[in-house]
Amino acid sequence: MPRRVAVVENILSANDQLAHENRENLDAVGLFAINLMASPGAGKTSLIEKTLPLLASRLSVAVVDGDIATSLDADRAAAAGAQAAIQVNTGGDCHLDAVMLSGALKQLDLGRYDLLIVENVGNLVCPASFALGTHLSVLVASIPEGDDKPHKYPGMYRGVDVLILNKIDLIPYIDFRMDFFNKGVEVLNPGVVTFPLSCPTGEGLEAWVEWLFEKVKAFRRKS
Amino acid sequence: MPRRVAVVENILSANDQLAHENRENLDAVGLFAINLMASPGAGKTSLIEKTLPLLASRLSVAVVDGDIATSLDADRAAAAGAQAAIQVNTGGDCHLDAVMLSGALKQLDLGRYDLLIVENVGNLVCPASFALGTHLSVLVASIPEGDDKPHKYPGMYRGVDVLILNKIDLIPYIDFRMDFFNKGVEVLNPGVVTFPLSCPTGEGLEAWVEWLFEKVKAFRRKS
Repeated sequence: MPRRVAVVENILSANDQLAHENRENLDAVGLFAINLMASPGAGKTSLIEKTLPLLASRLSVAVVDGDIATSLDADRAAAAGAQAAIQVNTGGDCHLDAVMLSGALKQLDLGRYDLLIVENVGNLVCPASFALGTHLSVLVASIPEGDDKPHKYPGMYRGVDVLILNKIDLIPYIDFRMDFFNKGVEVLNPGVVTFPLSCPTGEGLEAWVEWLFEKVKAFRRKS
Repeated sequence: MPRRVAVVENILSANDQLAHENRENLDAVGLFAINLMASPGAGKTSLIEKTLPLLASRLSVAVVDGDIATSLDADRAAAAGAQAAIQVNTGGDCHLDAVMLSGALKQLDLGRYDLLIVENVGNLVCPASFALGTHLSVLVASIPEGDDKPHKYPGMYRGVDVLILNKIDLIPYIDFRMDFFNKGVEVLNPGVVTFPLSCPTGEGLEAWVEWLFEKVKAFRRKS
């Protein structure tokens, strides 16, 4: 089906162009942005809920939440202390793209924030193919998803800058072969920055939040 | 972006046509087929592993496994006693479509089996939009995914015939509001046949397997 492939290429290149514009708009005001991706239910929203209070006294944070439907996630981000929370309903689309982020950015006074967290639609496949213009791609994996996920979703694991392994409090109750998981990650993305943590218990959260804070600081020094 | 919408419509209608042909081929030999869908890690493969031994003495079962990469799932289905296990690697696509199933069916001597289990790619969005020609759509949800999933992925929850709620053994360790989950399901798919169960402990499995066995029997009587 060559016609279909050609059309996908056109969409991607238009997307890349707009992602580039998004990046320029973010850079112009020194706003550091991360793209949070994961399976449905791995804990993206919980991570945002736990991260925001630990940054509240130091950074002003905006959140853009992508979902097929509802504003449940933006509501949770706002309740956790986001200075602004924008919900993007994709209306069926299985990922955010640069057009959608561009629309959300227009609703924000970008210069007021230090950090923008973009929460993508829960999906281990498609979001990896659509650049948004953010500075850092973060994948939230979770113990109950199983240890075979890097092997089965290589595109996602290959492309991210940071890997968070959430729900480590469930390790005692689940047969999760950590060496098999790590082997898959290591082949696809050697040396990727990794934070094992638990949003429910808080274990490991501080290491992630401090690392993120340092990233934002370094970015602002540069810009 | 009207051009893009038009192209998606073309693909879908070609897909529907081929799904119809798949259905005719299945019906011609009296082979009952189910389309198993879920998030990554909800437990589709584990459900197949636990279901097959309970049917082994009564039905001959073939499995078609869709994944971005690897043959891990087909290997597990074969080890659990599938009479045939075909792995379809989608090469990046985030769902199975009727073309891919058609290709897999050609590799099977369809008349030899009573039940075909098609395991779709782990994804709560796209597989819902691509009919395969199977007789029954089954969604595997799981406790650790969280209670908000019907609300956030309505397209998937709306379209399925059966809902399996897996990993109920983890209920004591996870904050899962069963009434919030059920409310979402009830709005989208009132009265959907539901089986709460646990693949790790086996609780609730028999009810699902016996229900499925009766479905296959009823289909074979008719055909």
